[in-house]
Amino acid sequence: MTALLWQKPGVSVDAEIQTFLAGDDVLLDRELMRYDIRASKSQAQSLQELGILTDHELADIDAALTDLDAAFVAGEFILDARYEDMHSAIESYLTERLGDTGRKIHTGRSRNDQVLVASRLWLRDRLQQTARIAIEIAEVALRRAESEAMQPIAGFTHLQRAMVSSLGMWWGAWAEGFIDNTQRALDTLQWINSNPLGSASGYGVNVRFDRDAASERLGFNRTQLIATYAQLSRGKFELAALDALGASVLDLRRLAWDLSLFASHEYGYVKLPAQYTTGSSLMPNKRNPDVIELMRASYAAVAAARVEIEQTVSLPSGYHRDLQFTKGSISHGFGRGLGALALVPDLLRNLEWNGERMVEVLDDGLYATDVAMEMAAAGTPFRDAYKAAADPSTWSGRTPEASLSARVSPGGAGNLQLETLQARLDNLAEQLARLD
Amino acid sequence: MTALLWQKPGVSVDAEIQTFLAGDDVLLDRELMRYDIRASKSQAQSLQELGILTDHELADIDAALTDLDAAFVAGEFILDARYEDMHSAIESYLTERLGDTGRKIHTGRSRNDQVLVASRLWLRDRLQQTARIAIEIAEVALRRAESEAMQPIAGFTHLQRAMVSSLGMWWGAWAEGFIDNTQRALDTLQWINSNPLGSASGYGVNVRFDRDAASERLGFNRTQLIATYAQLSRGKFELAALDALGASVLDLRRLAWDLSLFASHEYGYVKLPAQYTTGSSLMPNKRNPDVIELMRASYAAVAAARVEIEQTVSLPSGYHRDLQFTKGSISHGFGRGLGALALVPDLLRNLEWNGERMVEVLDDGLYATDVAMEMAAAGTPFRDAYKAAADPSTWSGRTPEASLSARVSPGGAGNLQLETLQARLDNLAEQLARLD
Amino acid sequence: MTALLWQKPGVSVDAEIQTFLAGDDVLLDRELMRYDIRASKSQAQSLQELGILTDHELADIDAALTDLDAAFVAGEFILDARYEDMHSAIESYLTERLGDTGRKIHTGRSRNDQVLVASRLWLRDRLQQTARIAIEIAEVALRRAESEAMQPIAGFTHLQRAMVSSLGMWWGAWAEGFIDNTQRALDTLQWINSNPLGSASGYGVNVRFDRDAASERLGFNRTQLIATYAQLSRGKFELAALDALGASVLDLRRLAWDLSLFASHEYGYVKLPAQYTTGSSLMPNKRNPDVIELMRASYAAVAAARVEIEQTVSLPSGYHRDLQFTKGSISHGFGRGLGALALVPDLLRNLEWNGERMVEVLDDGLYATDVAMEMAAAGTPFRDAYKAAADPSTWSGRTPEASLSARVSPGGAGNLQLETLQARLDNLAEQLARLD
Amino acid sequence: MTALLWQKPGVSVDAEIQTFLAGDDVLLDRELMRYDIRASKSQAQSLQELGILTDHELADIDAALTDLDAAFVAGEFILDARYEDMHSAIESYLTERLGDTGRKIHTGRSRNDQVLVASRLWLRDRLQQTARIAIEIAEVALRRAESEAMQPIAGFTHLQRAMVSSLGMWWGAWAEGFIDNTQRALDTLQWINSNPLGSASGYGVNVRFDRDAASERLGFNRTQLIATYAQLSRGKFELAALDALGASVLDLRRLAWDLSLFASHEYGYVKLPAQYTTGSSLMPNKRNPDVIELMRASYAAVAAARVEIEQTVSLPSGYHRDLQFTKGSISHGFGRGLGALALVPDLLRNLEWNGERMVEVLDDGLYATDVAMEMAAAGTPFRDAYKAAADPSTWSGRTPEASLSARVSPGGAGNLQLETLQARLDNLAEQLARLD
Repeated sequence: MTALLWQKPGVSVDAEIQTFLAGDDVLLDRELMRYDIRASKSQAQSLQELGILTDHELADIDAALTDLDAAFVAGEFILDARYEDMHSAIESYLTERLGDTGRKIHTGRSRNDQVLVASRLWLRDRLQQTARIAIEIAEVALRRAESEAMQPIAGFTHLQRAMVSSLGMWWGAWAEGFIDNTQRALDTLQWINSNPLGSASGYGVNVRFDRDAASERLGFNRTQLIATYAQLSRGKFELAALDALGASVLDLRRLAWDLSLFASHEYGYVKLPAQYTTGSSLMPNKRNPDVIELMRASYAAVAAARVEIEQTVSLPSGYHRDLQFTKGSISHGFGRGLGALALVPDLLRNLEWNGERMVEVLDDGLYATDVAMEMAAAGTPFRDAYKAAADPSTWSGRTPEASLSARVSPGGAGNLQLETLQARLDNLAEQLARLD
Repeated sequence: MTALLWQKPGVSVDAEIQTFLAGDDVLLDRELMRYDIRASKSQAQSLQELGILTDHELADIDAALTDLDAAFVAGEFILDARYEDMHSAIESYLTERLGDTGRKIHTGRSRNDQVLVASRLWLRDRLQQTARIAIEIAEVALRRAESEAMQPIAGFTHLQRAMVSSLGMWWGAWAEGFIDNTQRALDTLQWINSNPLGSASGYGVNVRFDRDAASERLGFNRTQLIATYAQLSRGKFELAALDALGASVLDLRRLAWDLSLFASHEYGYVKLPAQYTTGSSLMPNKRNPDVIELMRASYAAVAAARVEIEQTVSLPSGYHRDLQFTKGSISHGFGRGLGALALVPDLLRNLEWNGERMVEVLDDGLYATDVAMEMAAAGTPFRDAYKAAADPSTWSGRTPEASLSARVSPGGAGNLQLETLQARLDNLAEQLARLD
Repeated sequence: MTALLWQKPGVSVDAEIQTFLAGDDVLLDRELMRYDIRASKSQAQSLQELGILTDHELADIDAALTDLDAAFVAGEFILDARYEDMHSAIESYLTERLGDTGRKIHTGRSRNDQVLVASRLWLRDRLQQTARIAIEIAEVALRRAESEAMQPIAGFTHLQRAMVSSLGMWWGAWAEGFIDNTQRALDTLQWINSNPLGSASGYGVNVRFDRDAASERLGFNRTQLIATYAQLSRGKFELAALDALGASVLDLRRLAWDLSLFASHEYGYVKLPAQYTTGSSLMPNKRNPDVIELMRASYAAVAAARVEIEQTVSLPSGYHRDLQFTKGSISHGFGRGLGALALVPDLLRNLEWNGERMVEVLDDGLYATDVAMEMAAAGTPFRDAYKAAADPSTWSGRTPEASLSARVSPGGAGNLQLETLQARLDNLAEQLARLD
Repeated sequence: MTALLWQKPGVSVDAEIQTFLAGDDVLLDRELMRYDIRASKSQAQSLQELGILTDHELADIDAALTDLDAAFVAGEFILDARYEDMHSAIESYLTERLGDTGRKIHTGRSRNDQVLVASRLWLRDRLQQTARIAIEIAEVALRRAESEAMQPIAGFTHLQRAMVSSLGMWWGAWAEGFIDNTQRALDTLQWINSNPLGSASGYGVNVRFDRDAASERLGFNRTQLIATYAQLSRGKFELAALDALGASVLDLRRLAWDLSLFASHEYGYVKLPAQYTTGSSLMPNKRNPDVIELMRASYAAVAAARVEIEQTVSLPSGYHRDLQFTKGSISHGFGRGLGALALVPDLLRNLEWNGERMVEVLDDGLYATDVAMEMAAAGTPFRDAYKAAADPSTWSGRTPEASLSARVSPGGAGNLQLETLQARLDNLAEQLARLD
């Protein structure tokens, strides 16, 4: 490792301990690096405004950071164990290239607000991505809800067949779910969209940064004001972002459960495109829906990331090194969660139903509720109608189509009102577009 | 137990199994009962609109439900193990009192949407309460931030004294935190504020309920449209509500940690009013800050509630009995969380600082950063200034007041901009008021 | 509330705060009360050994505690909000009845070691109960594995039919699982089976208790030695007990998942006895396997209890009031977990298979692996045999019976070696019997 | 990627999906690779016993696996994205080198039992390592408990000074804790020490493997019998291993909390060797105890790993791809947990106390309990003695030494009985030695 920024003469450093301290920080920082560079540019601008950097020095730093960013993207600058972390790497780069000018970059900031602003920008991007995918999933689901609206499918409760349902209701449910999920991602994005840069180690510094200008440069919608609060929001905001992601991945878990059942021989409702399946190393006859299963399992990573942060932030106020581990948590949770979500739109587009099978399994018992309701609508007290309709002889002579068409309350199979969902979705898509 | 709504002739019921099935449902339902009554009134109205109830029958049901509510509040109607759950209790009450009219109340609804709407209303109230308390905490913190703005206190990182800080920054941090928490509670409240009633068992029914009218009657800002989605939102919305509560309780955990340390002999910063302490059964000399510690521990209940729901909803779509357990989870999480939060405003109002002690512990090392920054502002590259300022001889001759006054970036001790926080808070208080 | 043990003259007590402090302590203490009484008897004996109680005083206390226990069991002594907790209740009872003699009972103990020993005894009993039920489940599973050894059932991987399996393997798997679970419960019981009484508040007291004698009186297999460690084990031992319980409930979750699927129309493998099902409030046609679903959901309570404790014990050493909440956690986890497990043996005894259905769904593809293995055994490299056996024409002319009989490795359908499992089980049953 | 083992002609493979499926499997498999090689050797032996491999073929495979192991250790064979996983890599290697002989290696096994046996061996090693470090920590703690037995230190409850304590009690507590932790690791090791190899995909195969011989070759103490149970133990055994690790890391969290406080200015009890501290990037005056804080934070990773697995295994019986994620969970939990534990022995050896400071803070109130107990021992009912000893005038004229010496119950400061702990520790060390 190159010299540590804070190293004092005469203090020995133990290799094993340094390895433990470093952990996988530089690997994790690869995800955050470009955001740190971006925020460093803003910081340089702030220093120029205060006269700590000259115009010329600012231009030099800006150019160097642009180069570093390009080199990093091109794989020419490798963030590895030579550096304690990305912060040290950036400062080293500037110092090597610009000498004393580089040695000015850290004026008035701490790695504490530096990592806060970089991870804030990262979280913001990830929430935008979450919203973008959620919108796409909702779009696919709405399209298929429209085109397959009246295809019958058994409706289950307790995994028991309960009533006739429709693909319109099934797709519509996921559409409405992912519309809610989009809303949640955007709400959360706005909630965390505040700028911690300028709070230093949690106690500010004795210069007058124009923090609001920096907030604007970095696209934040407000300055996170009290320096001490910036530190308190570490972990708290990460949890909120994971919660928002989690809403989508939680729905995905239930969706994957459905598909896992529907793709079984026992159900036989759906055929997964071959690319979503794998074979067995031992059993020549198998095709396995591994992709679906890994989608289902992905929520566990979001839950784990959450718990890891929750367990960590049981601390008094102020920065503690414990908090450094939150970087790994969000990387794991968002990595796994967004990785799974990203494959969903295509999967849904490519699902092939076995419509015939879905109809042939519908037994007459699924009409019992219709019967009871008709009797109730005609004047029989419902509790009596319920008892009468338990008699199988009352169930005959009905069709799935008629049953579904009669479900005319808003959101029922015969009155899906998908246009209401489309309007909500369009509105959210506009909100998202305004963020870019 | 009185007869089960769904019981069929000739099917025996095993007592031990029924006990397991019932669990603590009726106890938990005591929290939800009034919401179920309220939603039942709306449902009766919907049935009258469809002609299933006459005006007269509606009036009877409405009056009976009003009486039941009053009897329940007065402790005259006890929800206990005689009933399978509150739903059965309400239907039984109506049937006993109104005969066939009562036997009509369940027309077109299921216990599935009934519990959804009751718990949705309950969650909405709990989030309002969360917002109300968060606002109150933020108010107290703002008032004390103003009046104690320049009182010095050590600022810590890693539990090591780092820089001089101020009570203005300490209080301001909690103020900004609880303003964010208020926002989160209100955002979440809006997010879940949709009406599941009318979705029946997740597949709708064959009548045309005017669900939008019901939504308006019950104060929802939208109808949860797709019947199948209403079921999918069980657990998901509970998690979101707990997340919003959790933001406040997570901050409280850190606040309680601070106070726990500050109230120790070692710190000696704060004196807790006697009513917040207890004695020891063995040690005559002790006064213990139990209230603070239980506040700190309360987050664990919110986390546990969350995990319990997360673990439960790993299910295919549709209702499953597993979901019934979510009632206990939210009761536990909100009970413990709101119970702790409710005591915070008074606790904060009554905190007494030991200002002298807080000043006398400030050593000169806490000015090192000020020194380095002054040199940097005067032109020394920061990395050199940092090294020079490590020399204790540079630290002398400074006062806490001067150090704090020079912290003039927005949100620093010398420029807290509390009016910005006040404006945000006022705005949120208005939003909350509009909900009542 | 009666006077607080530690109350000092002139210190006012705030009702709202006292309510928060009390929480549901007295309710939870109802579970622990008899263990506290038992440990109090032992403590009185220790005090007599030291001459602090006379023989006569000891006899009085012992008799009074016996009466209190009987009154508590009979419901004549109610532990309610009149008392701060069970400890205060017991001391009050003795003082009211015996005057100064009662006022001696707390000599040399603290509520800290008092609650430790009571909850340790409680946990020990709960682990015994866990072992007892796990043994019973394993017994039932072994009996059915024997009698249904060669009944074919599809073996699944990825919820796809994979190979022919047998009920012998299915039952055998649960038998082996619950044998492991018994072992785990007994190991854990031994691990926590140490006596904390006599450690006072974590720092001992200035008398010479014969703690080893007390350990023997209370049936512990060792004294938990260092007073300070007794406090450190709070939460840690609770977690271990929940882990041991969790092994059984985790297996139950998977078992309930199997049954939930097997009981569906789609599988049609199993018929649940009517008493394990319930009806729908809306749909006259439904029978729902609620008991199975609540069994499946019970693991969530164990997980939640675990998280609640884990979150709580992020503390420096020594007692903190936070730890009081661990009582509620173990009560919830064990209550729900043991409640579910207790119903399992009868459920398993009463399961009725639809053997015909289970055979008719077995398609020829399930023999592909047999074919490949036969070719491999005859000399074809397995990877070639695997490819050849992917051809459906190679699969014909086989029977489930032949396929199963050929599975002759230990633990395969044709060589279950259940006697090995029986021997392990008998050994564990003996270990358990020795504890009583 | 090289060809997939199970790939069928004409089925296209989607790159993005394959990437998602692969995840970080090959990276994680680097940890398991040598165990898979070891188990493959055993499997070859089993195949030779059955006549499927000739003696010559066995020798070839054995030699090739030895070479592969050496090449892997030397970094000459890199397990990377060319392979689907380590299983494919090993089979490919053998096939490339040995042709048809290599193509026989997978006879009668599945990747399902292959990964089970490899991860079982890995877990066994990790638990041995856990036990080894726990023993070392207990040793250091015992040594320091002996040599610093009567050094006074304040004993805290509720973070309030309560009674005089001793370093003998403080060190003794950690010693007893880590002795318990060693026991737990060894118990768990025995519990999971069973051989799943030979169970194939969970349903066995139609050859007669001598599984007990394989168990002996691989050092297992029993064969995991029922093929179907081998699959059910995936996740379950991983959780048990994490629980055992967690006991140590949970204690470490509390130990780190103590040290974090003791190292603060406010306490001033302990000086951390310089190599355990780092500097600040902004504040020249700081030395931060980062190592201690990362130790404290490490429990979060164990908790997260646990939750990730718990969330994943909510599944019916049989293998599901979801289970593949458990590899990452145990790698994360053990990596972080053992990494932290490994640094503890040296840290404890190097701790320097500030004994003077620790004595000077002891105020007379810490003797109040001694006073009350003396009065009680002399005949005053304890509750009266408690009240009398609340009077500060009774506290004077005492010394820490006398107070500690009088604490003579077993495990008290004056009667630590460390030899009892040493005997337990020696016994455990022998148990561990027998495993090697």
